[in-house]
Amino acid sequence: MKFCDECGAPVRLSVPPGDNLPRYVCDACGKIHYHNPRLVVGCVPEHEGRILLCRRAIEPRRGYWTVPAGFMENDETLQQAAMRESREEALAEVTIGSLLSVVHVLHARQVHVFFRATLPAASYGAGAESLEVTLVEPGQIPWEEIAFPSTEFTLRRYLEDKAAGREQHHFTTIDRRLRKAPEDG
Amino acid sequence: MKFCDECGAPVRLSVPPGDNLPRYVCDACGKIHYHNPRLVVGCVPEHEGRILLCRRAIEPRRGYWTVPAGFMENDETLQQAAMRESREEALAEVTIGSLLSVVHVLHARQVHVFFRATLPAASYGAGAESLEVTLVEPGQIPWEEIAFPSTEFTLRRYLEDKAAGREQHHFTTIDRRLRKAPEDG
Repeated sequence: MKFCDECGAPVRLSVPPGDNLPRYVCDACGKIHYHNPRLVVGCVPEHEGRILLCRRAIEPRRGYWTVPAGFMENDETLQQAAMRESREEALAEVTIGSLLSVVHVLHARQVHVFFRATLPAASYGAGAESLEVTLVEPGQIPWEEIAFPSTEFTLRRYLEDKAAGREQHHFTTIDRRLRKAPEDG
Repeated sequence: MKFCDECGAPVRLSVPPGDNLPRYVCDACGKIHYHNPRLVVGCVPEHEGRILLCRRAIEPRRGYWTVPAGFMENDETLQQAAMRESREEALAEVTIGSLLSVVHVLHARQVHVFFRATLPAASYGAGAESLEVTLVEPGQIPWEEIAFPSTEFTLRRYLEDKAAGREQHHFTTIDRRLRKAPEDG
C-alpha cells in the first residue's frame, strides 16, 4: 500500500504509539491501516463415496485440481462461504458437515478452513472459474496434480478419517516465506 | 474507503466484470479492493479450576470483563495469536489446548475463534489494554459485566463441556446488522 484509503495522502510504515508492529500510517489524517490474514473457505463434497473435484480455470495453478474453495466474503458464515464457493465453482448444492481442517498458510497471509460436505444429487458442472468438474473415486485422486498443499492435506485427512470411521478436525501450518532475521516474541 | 491505496486516485463502488458483489474499484490504475472478515482470536485460560479474566482498559466496552483475545496478525498461527494476546493483555504465558468456539460476528465483519488453554503458573497481571486481570471461580463469573456476546457464548460452552467431561467445538452466529432488503443467494 502506498496511499491512505481515507484521504489519499502518502502513507509510511511505522510502529504506532502503544503498538509493537509496523503499520501503514497516514500522517495527514492519522489513520492507521491494519493488514490481517484473510480467510479462504472450502469443503470436500462427497456423493456416494466419490469426491467432487474442480480443475482450475484461473491462476494461480490453472489446470490443477482442487476442491471448491475461495475467499470468505463479509456478511456470511464460514459454512455459507463453503456452500457459495461450491455453487460458484462447481454449480453444486452441497450440505455442509463437520469441520475438517484449518491450515495456516503463513507466506500467503491466509487461513484456510475446510468442512466435510455431502452432495445429495449428482448435479454439478464447471463454473466460471473451473475448466471441468468431476466426481472421482478416492483411489483415482490425481495427487500429482492437486493445486495447493492445503488441498492435499485436507483430502488426505478426509480419507484417513473416513477409513477410520471418525470425524476429527486437523490443524497444520504451511510456511514458504523467505528466511528472515529472527524476530522477538 | 475513498481512495486507491496503490495510486491515490478516488475509488468508486461497482461490480467488477465476472464478479457478483460491489467492490471499491480504481478507474485510474484498475486495482480492485477486496474487503473480507477479520479474525479475532482468544482463549479461556484455566489455572487450578479458576478462569483468567481481563477487565478492559480500552473501548469498546471499557470496564467490562473478557478473556484474552484480539485481532490475528500476519505471520502467526491461530494458536500463536491466542498466546500473544494472553501475553499482551494478561502478562500470562498460556498453553493452548483444543478448539472451543467459532463465532461469526456478522455486523462487525469478524470471525472470533477461541481455544481452551491452561495457565501453568499463577503468574499474570494487567497489560496495557487491561484495567485488572484476575482468576475467578466459575461460580463467580460476572455474567452481567461480560464485554461481548462471543465471550459469553464461549465461557458458557467451556463450563458446560467441562462439567460434561468433554472437549467439543461450537459454532454460532451473532447478527446485529440493521434490517436490509432481502438479498439473492
